[in-house]
Amino acid sequence: MKQQIRILGIDDSPFKFNGGKALVVGALVRVPNYLEGVMKSEVTVDGSDSSDAIIQMVSRSRYREQIKAIMTDGIALAGFNIIDVKRVHEALRIPVLTVTRDEPDFEKIKSALMKHFPDWTERYSLVTKLELRRIQTEHNPLFVSGVGLSWLEFEELVRISTVRGVVPEPIRIAHLIAAAMVKGESSGRS
Amino acid sequence: MKQQIRILGIDDSPFKFNGGKALVVGALVRVPNYLEGVMKSEVTVDGSDSSDAIIQMVSRSRYREQIKAIMTDGIALAGFNIIDVKRVHEALRIPVLTVTRDEPDFEKIKSALMKHFPDWTERYSLVTKLELRRIQTEHNPLFVSGVGLSWLEFEELVRISTVRGVVPEPIRIAHLIAAAMVKGESSGRS
Repeated sequence: MKQQIRILGIDDSPFKFNGGKALVVGALVRVPNYLEGVMKSEVTVDGSDSSDAIIQMVSRSRYREQIKAIMTDGIALAGFNIIDVKRVHEALRIPVLTVTRDEPDFEKIKSALMKHFPDWTERYSLVTKLELRRIQTEHNPLFVSGVGLSWLEFEELVRISTVRGVVPEPIRIAHLIAAAMVKGESSGRS
Repeated sequence: MKQQIRILGIDDSPFKFNGGKALVVGALVRVPNYLEGVMKSEVTVDGSDSSDAIIQMVSRSRYREQIKAIMTDGIALAGFNIIDVKRVHEALRIPVLTVTRDEPDFEKIKSALMKHFPDWTERYSLVTKLELRRIQTEHNPLFVSGVGLSWLEFEELVRISTVRGVVPEPIRIAHLIAAAMVKGESSGRS
């Protein structure tokens, strides 16, 4: 895989209110960590518009043709606004990869969805329909799922876009920006 | 000068309305280009609050002690909201450096200030009281002024924080973020 590829990292901002909006930031990074562009969108907290928001943000972007992969921080934005990874991939024809540091507890997710969402079966099927794999890094493991590339290629993408610690730069940078825009300053882990 | 130093680049967003607010973004970069933190503030378009905004944003920052220099994109934010570089330096005890790619046309600035601002003499004296020097880069020249370091050190700061082209990374990154937050996506030159 070439060293000049560009990955769009996507993360959401902290949010306060149910039914409110959360900021979504896309950071276009030439690996390992040269920031080439920034874009934004917004999604409804606990809504169902995260796939559409990502598809629209990327479709209208002037960087669109440069993006070789999309990396999201987990499979949901703004609470339980679950990303339909397969639909995003099919709409954009760009490989999509979800990355998280915390091993998902599917039973806990299921009961939270059942409790709060009439459409919980749909949401839960989006969470579980992709295989989730553990990638060992030099530090802690990462949990990754994705569509559009082989596992070896996904692992390679994570490896070539990570500079320090375990979080790939596109996601780390998107996180710093989104947090700062809502809280005034970035902080903490992505 | 150490290679691990951190520079806070500051740039403003595009803006539309006189009297309105412009977003100000600070990008904390470990040279040459590792983004460590992001912060934000706002200033009044054509107002006189840019120095206070910078002083407050940096004073309250948890990154404050790490910042070895502040680099601003030119000497004004949000139109003619001129930065009092000396005052910012004295308040924060951090070297401050203004960097611009366009050679300032002082006669043009003076007549614009005279036309629009009753306090034009104060603003103009802030623009002119620091020596401005041309720094030759591999590409085009940069025009730099600053307080708190020697010229050699300022030149070194510019050199070690530039990756591609002529714009130092702290300013380039702050520009990308500020533009994207207001326009939806970054574009163009900083």
